Amino acid sequence: MLAEIEQQPEALERTLREVLPRAEALRRRLEGRRPAVIVLVARGTSDNAATFGRYLLEITTGLPVSLAAPSVTTLYGAAPRWQDALVVGVSQSGASTDVNVCLETARAQGAFTIGVTNESRSALAGLVDEVFPVLAGPELSVAATKTYTGQMLGFYLLAFALGAPLDTERLREIPETAEAFLSLRSEVEQLSERYRFMERAVVLARGLNYANALELSLKLMETCYVTAERFSTADFRHGPIALAERDFPVFLWAPPGPTAAGAAEIVEKLGELQAETVVMAPVDSPSLAKATRSIVLPSVPGERVARPADLYTPIPYIIPGQLLAAALAEQKGLDPDQPRALRKVTQTL
Amino acid sequence: MLAEIEQQPEALERTLREVLPRAEALRRRLEGRRPAVIVLVARGTSDNAATFGRYLLEITTGLPVSLAAPSVTTLYGAAPRWQDALVVGVSQSGASTDVNVCLETARAQGAFTIGVTNESRSALAGLVDEVFPVLAGPELSVAATKTYTGQMLGFYLLAFALGAPLDTERLREIPETAEAFLSLRSEVEQLSERYRFMERAVVLARGLNYANALELSLKLMETCYVTAERFSTADFRHGPIALAERDFPVFLWAPPGPTAAGAAEIVEKLGELQAETVVMAPVDSPSLAKATRSIVLPSVPGERVARPADLYTPIPYIIPGQLLAAALAEQKGLDPDQPRALRKVTQTL
Repeated sequence: MLAEIEQQPEALERTLREVLPRAEALRRRLEGRRPAVIVLVARGTSDNAATFGRYLLEITTGLPVSLAAPSVTTLYGAAPRWQDALVVGVSQSGASTDVNVCLETARAQGAFTIGVTNESRSALAGLVDEVFPVLAGPELSVAATKTYTGQMLGFYLLAFALGAPLDTERLREIPETAEAFLSLRSEVEQLSERYRFMERAVVLARGLNYANALELSLKLMETCYVTAERFSTADFRHGPIALAERDFPVFLWAPPGPTAAGAAEIVEKLGELQAETVVMAPVDSPSLAKATRSIVLPSVPGERVARPADLYTPIPYIIPGQLLAAALAEQKGLDPDQPRALRKVTQTL
Repeated sequence: MLAEIEQQPEALERTLREVLPRAEALRRRLEGRRPAVIVLVARGTSDNAATFGRYLLEITTGLPVSLAAPSVTTLYGAAPRWQDALVVGVSQSGASTDVNVCLETARAQGAFTIGVTNESRSALAGLVDEVFPVLAGPELSVAATKTYTGQMLGFYLLAFALGAPLDTERLREIPETAEAFLSLRSEVEQLSERYRFMERAVVLARGLNYANALELSLKLMETCYVTAERFSTADFRHGPIALAERDFPVFLWAPPGPTAAGAAEIVEKLGELQAETVVMAPVDSPSLAKATRSIVLPSVPGERVARPADLYTPIPYIIPGQLLAAALAEQKGLDPDQPRALRKVTQTL
């Protein structure tokens, strides 16, 4: 898992070099032709990447996005009217039966389909109109890391293809920024010892980084067997905050931009409740002052000028989360590459 | 909370009597006019009802549904193109700023808007083209129960208005079925003692009953301070099942119909892992044999003939979940009406 976390800058660089020209060509082809809705189909970590894609696509293209509920099609045999939709399947292996059944249904209706996958020769790749390959190389750990960030990059490229006003220069800087975030490793490893006996936790974020809360929570469950809940900071206040008591551990991201003020409020509120907060934020974040522990994040190119300011943060920001899950698994004497009861490719209908 | 749980048959009856004629009139008005997509906007328990609505609407009307991410509009200032959408706001109080901002944005674009709310004189009700009132009467407990099932009923009526082939006779039987399910109270109270010291749990369901897993998990967090995770049985297998170990408590619904086989498989798998399973299922369910504990559910009219067989199960099926949360709060010496750190109306942007 750690080796694959460290391969991310290289994997992102390779994917960008290969797929950016395709995205540019697709952008020209699609000009003036916009789908009525974008439907994203995925499971597990890929579904977390799709959640990122959902925010990115709605914010930057203005198209409404629906995260598909595959069982509607696979179990109930209903086929939502997707003929005017762009349907995107996301799967590391390209071998998920439920994702592929949804894509087949969409194609049969005449929808334009795209596949984001690490396996260019997979069933998924053979099914879709256009493949956005994730060139992460073989992922051997059951806990997905480099394919998650690769899929996130795929969504930037897809948003660009759909006409989003993204700066390709900023996209080209992502691998280097990811490299800078890997330097957090020893600091995160030291911090992880404190959570050696943690059994429960909550992970929070909002907006473009919300998917990272889902992903860190999933990694804590898979690799550390921590019962890790995940919420948007807003949903957390609508009920689950009742969980927070003295010493209850809450991990959260406080990126620059539109979600910063809400993050600072919740850190303050959790401080009043004497919960333990671990805040991941850039050095000038107002959330850091009230945090129990903090991971100060390197700056992300463009965060002073990008609109929104957190636009290019989600890929580097998951890295301290991945490092934390890997380090904590080690603290707990667990093998993050082979979680109990799991295999790399899960088949569900 | 218990009093409000027991008011549900009456509240459902009142809502049905008032809103079914409106839904019938709207069905005639909307004939031949179908939106490109349905967007549902909600928070907290209302968001769980919206998740039910999502499955029901996609399965019975074939229209794609998107659960809105309010922050896209409220924080990022982006307005997804909703002019061809039907936008439905769901809020007990009708006073949620974020839901109302999304509805205003949708109306300004020309979208047809509907509000499902317990407060007919609320800001939300004043904003929308059509109100589907939930006539649950005042809900005083912070933990929402009767407004949740009232909102679910609102979604049946909305699906009917959009042309779904629902049997109004079956809808009229829902209050009586809910009454029958209230008879589980003493059995559930007895069972609850076993979980007096439970700190973590997982709640599972799938398809039309998936929203009930979200709702029971939220109730366990709010009223019992149990760290209760929630997953679809399919997503659970894609990672979080690693949590399951000897004695780990998993609550799940195993309704008749398309999701029954998958539920039985997961109960068997959890049995192999020596987890503790609490299965809520009708008497002939294959899931009961391998359950650690079970709550045998009364039959739901139509479950032998409805297509799908679980179509009319979700409203009565949440009732043992609500009873369990209320009884467990009592076992733990907590006041479910006044959870710590919560108020009845939560304002987020």
